Amino acid sequence: MKEYIIRPIGKIKTPFKHMGESPRQARYSDGAEGTIKIYKKYVQGLEGLEKYKYIVVLFYFDRLKSYRLTAIPPGSNLSRGVFASRSPYRPNHIGLSVVQLLKVKNNLLKVRNVDMLDGTPVIDIKPYIKDIDKN
Amino acid sequence: MKEYIIRPIGKIKTPFKHMGESPRQARYSDGAEGTIKIYKKYVQGLEGLEKYKYIVVLFYFDRLKSYRLTAIPPGSNLSRGVFASRSPYRPNHIGLSVVQLLKVKNNLLKVRNVDMLDGTPVIDIKPYIKDIDKN
Repeated sequence: MKEYIIRPIGKIKTPFKHMGESPRQARYSDGAEGTIKIYKKYVQGLEGLEKYKYIVVLFYFDRLKSYRLTAIPPGSNLSRGVFASRSPYRPNHIGLSVVQLLKVKNNLLKVRNVDMLDGTPVIDIKPYIKDIDKN
Repeated sequence: MKEYIIRPIGKIKTPFKHMGESPRQARYSDGAEGTIKIYKKYVQGLEGLEKYKYIVVLFYFDRLKSYRLTAIPPGSNLSRGVFASRSPYRPNHIGLSVVQLLKVKNNLLKVRNVDMLDGTPVIDIKPYIKDIDKN
């Protein structure tokens, strides 16, 4: 079986220091703000990002070492498959949040509605584009 | 610098055999259909997915060996940073498409509006949830 290597492009600073403190989803974060720091070697990749209001952030759930094929969503008592949930305990541990981009300054992105733990590795940023991401 | 290992959970069969044939984005695929085959060990993770109309598919651009920090979007002549584009030539080579889920049968997901090349490794599937993914 093939394997691929992922290298963080930066990391995010958030108010959430421990598991259990972070909101379930970016949308439920009550406007919590964070700062994504992009590593110097990738900074040129940010050119033009400031014109987008929302960005898609892919990140790595680095506090977790295992995954489960089923999950029980908050507020439910019914188990479902992990791919039918947004549980962090997923194979490959990749998280996705759409956050509001407040400001870009050098290699720092100030963002709103974060749900990641402080120090979480960021592995990709994409512009959120209504035409292709909204259904 | 930390590195993380990604292992495909399946792969997708599409009509697009070569680079240049695939549409720029799932939305521009003119309804092209594909089939995601999930590897047996992960099949339990699909439970309950059938009730979602759209799913987020994360995949790995496995035909590409390099990345560029800038990209020139189709129809433009202005270069921009790769994180302000959806170019596949990105660090970590992770693609994201929101596709319509037509049918789930055992370990096979029939989907519409695909833009991946045939045989592309799938690394995660998440339910598309309006409340958290739409802006």
